[in-house]
Amino acid sequence: MAQYGVGGVKRNLPEPVVILADGNPPTHPAPLSTLQTANTLICTDGAGEKAKMLDRHPDFIIGDMDSHNKASLSHGTDIIELTDQNSTDLEKALDFCIQEGVVSATLLGLSGGREDHMLANFAILSGVSKKMKLSAVTDYHTVHPVSDKEDFSCISNSTVSLLTAHGQPTVTTTGLRFPLQDQCLLSSGHGVSNFAETDKFSVKVAGGIVLVFIRHGD
Amino acid sequence: MAQYGVGGVKRNLPEPVVILADGNPPTHPAPLSTLQTANTLICTDGAGEKAKMLDRHPDFIIGDMDSHNKASLSHGTDIIELTDQNSTDLEKALDFCIQEGVVSATLLGLSGGREDHMLANFAILSGVSKKMKLSAVTDYHTVHPVSDKEDFSCISNSTVSLLTAHGQPTVTTTGLRFPLQDQCLLSSGHGVSNFAETDKFSVKVAGGIVLVFIRHGD
Repeated sequence: MAQYGVGGVKRNLPEPVVILADGNPPTHPAPLSTLQTANTLICTDGAGEKAKMLDRHPDFIIGDMDSHNKASLSHGTDIIELTDQNSTDLEKALDFCIQEGVVSATLLGLSGGREDHMLANFAILSGVSKKMKLSAVTDYHTVHPVSDKEDFSCISNSTVSLLTAHGQPTVTTTGLRFPLQDQCLLSSGHGVSNFAETDKFSVKVAGGIVLVFIRHGD
Repeated sequence: MAQYGVGGVKRNLPEPVVILADGNPPTHPAPLSTLQTANTLICTDGAGEKAKMLDRHPDFIIGDMDSHNKASLSHGTDIIELTDQNSTDLEKALDFCIQEGVVSATLLGLSGGREDHMLANFAILSGVSKKMKLSAVTDYHTVHPVSDKEDFSCISNSTVSLLTAHGQPTVTTTGLRFPLQDQCLLSSGHGVSNFAETDKFSVKVAGGIVLVFIRHGD
């Protein structure tokens, strides 16, 4: 596995750690706020340019550097060039975080653009959530991979969708209008567009991973 | 299961059958051509309005009708209102096709907009492909769910991505720059951005379903 630290010394990556991937740049206030309040901003390859367009200076740019214009770099950005063709730039960025001992991160820029990238990005969000605490903020949702039990806060009556990401999980919910009780999601669309009855709800998952989508307020 | 035919007589749904879902309306010539050459156009709920904006009259509009403006309907569209809250409008449209004996259909409008809908749409594309021959055309790709062996034609050097949709499939390819031989996809990003070396390639899958994304020419 790649070693990123110098002489075994880990870098200082102050929390909150935010990773900006190379989908469409965020436009909604929720992901923009997440971007602005990051204390460590890691961008995948071409997303470095997008961060700068949003007035945020990347602390790290990670990837195969096939999309990034190195000449445009300002001082203070660490470039980590990794050319492994078996993983995407987002996987490289998350691998770097794990190596550096980061325990939680929020992902932006997962969606928009090519659908193959977007589906891979959401699969990576789920897969890597076994190794570190991850969530994502898109222009529509905050997204949490859940494989155990988790309590959530939200705006009352938020739209909440539950989608199977891995395995054949059974799901139990409290606080949702259409409750589930130790139940498999019956079809791909079964968990879409449920609602939080108040400003909190919980989701308990066994036997797999469920992505919980909480829609932002309008 | 819902019965859509009258007195057991199936409706006449001439091929090619196209289903327009309620994601972003297509803008690329590839999905627009698929839309214009449909002999049966089925729209899910709010997608009926999108079809009309693209100068195509829907033959059927199917869904819970929470998004469709019935007053705007022109003559010659069958409205099939189904209020089952456990399935999405796309699942209802595909269930209708299966009931009516449709053997193949092309799906448009799967992507864009809310990510929960988009992920559910691609999961439905894979899941229902066991019951009828399905493909999708987006603004970036033609997408084929593969669970056996399939030969494809494409523009030389097209970008081809392979993503696991169900199970833990082993994959063998011919004609791709980075070949796979009875191999599992190593990670969520492993199959993204391969390339067709000529104008044809094949994919053989065992033990699951793989989505094959063939990128349109520029």
